[in-house]
Amino acid sequence: MNSIEPDFALAAELFEKLRRSSFDGVGITRDSYGKGEQRAHDLLAHTAETLGLSLSRDAALNLYMTLPGRNPHAPPVITGSHLDSVPRGGNFDGAAGVLAGIAVLAGWVRAGFQPDVSVTVMAIRAEESAWFPLSYLGSKAAFGLINAGNLETRRADNARTLAEHLQDLGGDGQRLLVSEPRLSAANVNSFIELHIEQGPILEDAGQPLGIVTGICGSLRYRQARVYGQYAHSGATPRLHRHDAVVAVAELITGLYQDWAILEEQGHQLTVTSGQLSTDAQQADFSKISGDVKFCVDFRSSSVETLALIDQHLHQRIAQITARHGVSFELGEQTRSAPAKMDTKLQRLLHNAARALSIPAMTLQSGAGHDAALFSTQGVPSAMVFVRNANGSHNPDESMALDDFAAAVRVLDEALRNRSLTAVER
Amino acid sequence: MNSIEPDFALAAELFEKLRRSSFDGVGITRDSYGKGEQRAHDLLAHTAETLGLSLSRDAALNLYMTLPGRNPHAPPVITGSHLDSVPRGGNFDGAAGVLAGIAVLAGWVRAGFQPDVSVTVMAIRAEESAWFPLSYLGSKAAFGLINAGNLETRRADNARTLAEHLQDLGGDGQRLLVSEPRLSAANVNSFIELHIEQGPILEDAGQPLGIVTGICGSLRYRQARVYGQYAHSGATPRLHRHDAVVAVAELITGLYQDWAILEEQGHQLTVTSGQLSTDAQQADFSKISGDVKFCVDFRSSSVETLALIDQHLHQRIAQITARHGVSFELGEQTRSAPAKMDTKLQRLLHNAARALSIPAMTLQSGAGHDAALFSTQGVPSAMVFVRNANGSHNPDESMALDDFAAAVRVLDEALRNRSLTAVER
Repeated sequence: MNSIEPDFALAAELFEKLRRSSFDGVGITRDSYGKGEQRAHDLLAHTAETLGLSLSRDAALNLYMTLPGRNPHAPPVITGSHLDSVPRGGNFDGAAGVLAGIAVLAGWVRAGFQPDVSVTVMAIRAEESAWFPLSYLGSKAAFGLINAGNLETRRADNARTLAEHLQDLGGDGQRLLVSEPRLSAANVNSFIELHIEQGPILEDAGQPLGIVTGICGSLRYRQARVYGQYAHSGATPRLHRHDAVVAVAELITGLYQDWAILEEQGHQLTVTSGQLSTDAQQADFSKISGDVKFCVDFRSSSVETLALIDQHLHQRIAQITARHGVSFELGEQTRSAPAKMDTKLQRLLHNAARALSIPAMTLQSGAGHDAALFSTQGVPSAMVFVRNANGSHNPDESMALDDFAAAVRVLDEALRNRSLTAVER
Repeated sequence: MNSIEPDFALAAELFEKLRRSSFDGVGITRDSYGKGEQRAHDLLAHTAETLGLSLSRDAALNLYMTLPGRNPHAPPVITGSHLDSVPRGGNFDGAAGVLAGIAVLAGWVRAGFQPDVSVTVMAIRAEESAWFPLSYLGSKAAFGLINAGNLETRRADNARTLAEHLQDLGGDGQRLLVSEPRLSAANVNSFIELHIEQGPILEDAGQPLGIVTGICGSLRYRQARVYGQYAHSGATPRLHRHDAVVAVAELITGLYQDWAILEEQGHQLTVTSGQLSTDAQQADFSKISGDVKFCVDFRSSSVETLALIDQHLHQRIAQITARHGVSFELGEQTRSAPAKMDTKLQRLLHNAARALSIPAMTLQSGAGHDAALFSTQGVPSAMVFVRNANGSHNPDESMALDDFAAAVRVLDEALRNRSLTAVER
């Protein structure tokens, strides 16, 4: 078996092709169910065909690239990740996991290695909720978790519905609603996702890769708003003001303090307001603002912690409303559940790393990933993180191909082990 | 003299014509050196001609509508205000002062009253700095205070220069630079401006009008910015963040606290950030923000207080920069000087009110007005404020025509007194 080597040259070539086809002048844009994502899917499908893998797509246009096992009726082991990106993002977030799987299977094909159970590389649609306001849209669709209302959800940049976007690509929203889900706990052996780390933990620890213990859930208000009263900035005394900017500033400052206190108490969470804006039409240099839009993103591995910070949010809002005579509208709350990674798969990955003498640390994922959805659907799931400088969701994300190679070797070893043994779940 | 009565019907008719010609669907828009302001100037010029007043314009296209006195060579008494408005503003801010002057002179013409010294109603250009980023642009131009750089200043909404806008209206920027200023301390007897109050003080006190003691100066950063670092909202731990939104929230929250403390210490000031925005292209729900634009507007009747709050701003910025590893760029600082209203003119107005049995209180103007520029140029200046509900710079400003009439009677009485006596300055 030692002659099997993942095809790193192919992966490097695919990274470069992806980069070229989705560079937007600043960073990488592969829009979910849009041209950017589709170009990536076309490239991967073409590559998989060339390798002789068997191809299929589900009703949500997720792409499955399979090396059939000796026992083709056994549930497959799936690896992969998503191919979309945030606007002006980086080239590795998502794509690294798909290219890792292809590099592994290309190595197997070249060496003539056939696993016992089929191994599928899945290119998942629409993981980045920057486009459609739904977490894990592609994975959810594969598990039959999309409803008619979701099909009418509009993409943030162009306000066109998911159904319209599906249709553009030859898909069919109705078929998505009525057809048997492609994936279920019963018909998937396991899911292993390789992904760049989107934070600084591996970088800071000087470790090339990490094996994930769990994935944070989220509690979000994407379209929150505070209304005050527009008034002259010079002529309105302090205690007569209903200043929406001061109100939102106090809320964000307060939540940051609450966060620090909860951390001191041992809670694990993040608190972020990434978008904030006065009204471009009505706000003016010489007016107190009467209207600010903002968003709130809480994440934690604990449902209880999410409930606690949400309670702090509501307390802050009550205080600020009373103090400034403003009114808050939080809008729709969206949530995703925290997920625990399968302990057997974690052990499998640690053993693979040890066998290859590749150091691997243990860490929690603050970011959400498709593996969380697989896990909450009852599929044993695991993740390998690759060290990455400068975070993600920006053009500067930076993964060394050496680190990628180390992680792909670990993935290769783990997939071979998993696919060769009639695994007891 | 008692048979002289200001022409309130004419004023009401002009308010209505102005409203109709500048309604934008939401509020009133009379853009400085644009079509909205020009329509108002055309209406006033036509009205003044009909009344037989003598018309002239200076190089900045300020409009002077004069009832010549028996001594036409004596410096005139000027009344008036500006005709432009903020975008989606109200109908009374500015225009009330011009229509008040016209109502007074129309009454004088009808009664055949001729003053000793000429009385001029001045329709001033471009007072609202929402358009061009200059305080008192029209008044400054009348006093010869515009330089070549100012002519290249661009209007906020269309990025066209002041020189281009002047040219559109038949003006000439070069002439503005080289011609003798129309106004100077030596050739103006005095300036009395009627204006709606833009805050709630008269409304709260139940008083129809106020006589202004002084006008606040300002210290402003119109184009401030804080840079942090974009990063994944879930994957970036608290102490690894450089969050531009948290930084600006802490700054605004801190300045609000500084303001309250300074007020307790007896300082008079306002502190406002009316515009605030993450970058529409790069900010995302799932990203920590790396870039926020904001503005800061300090106003006070005291230069020392302005310096003090500016010092607090810089201290806050130093602290927040150290705490969050962000960087602030405050951009250009613009200032206007506080102005004291002439005590003799204040007394004249109080006496006029008393003679008419109209209650009048004393107040400070938090908002800037053209009278501030006249005053700092050495012209004895005064202001009458009219009660106005709902503030200004918004479509809901609301001045009762009864209150306007009371204020116009006081203005009439004061102008007659001033124009009939060879006043010692």
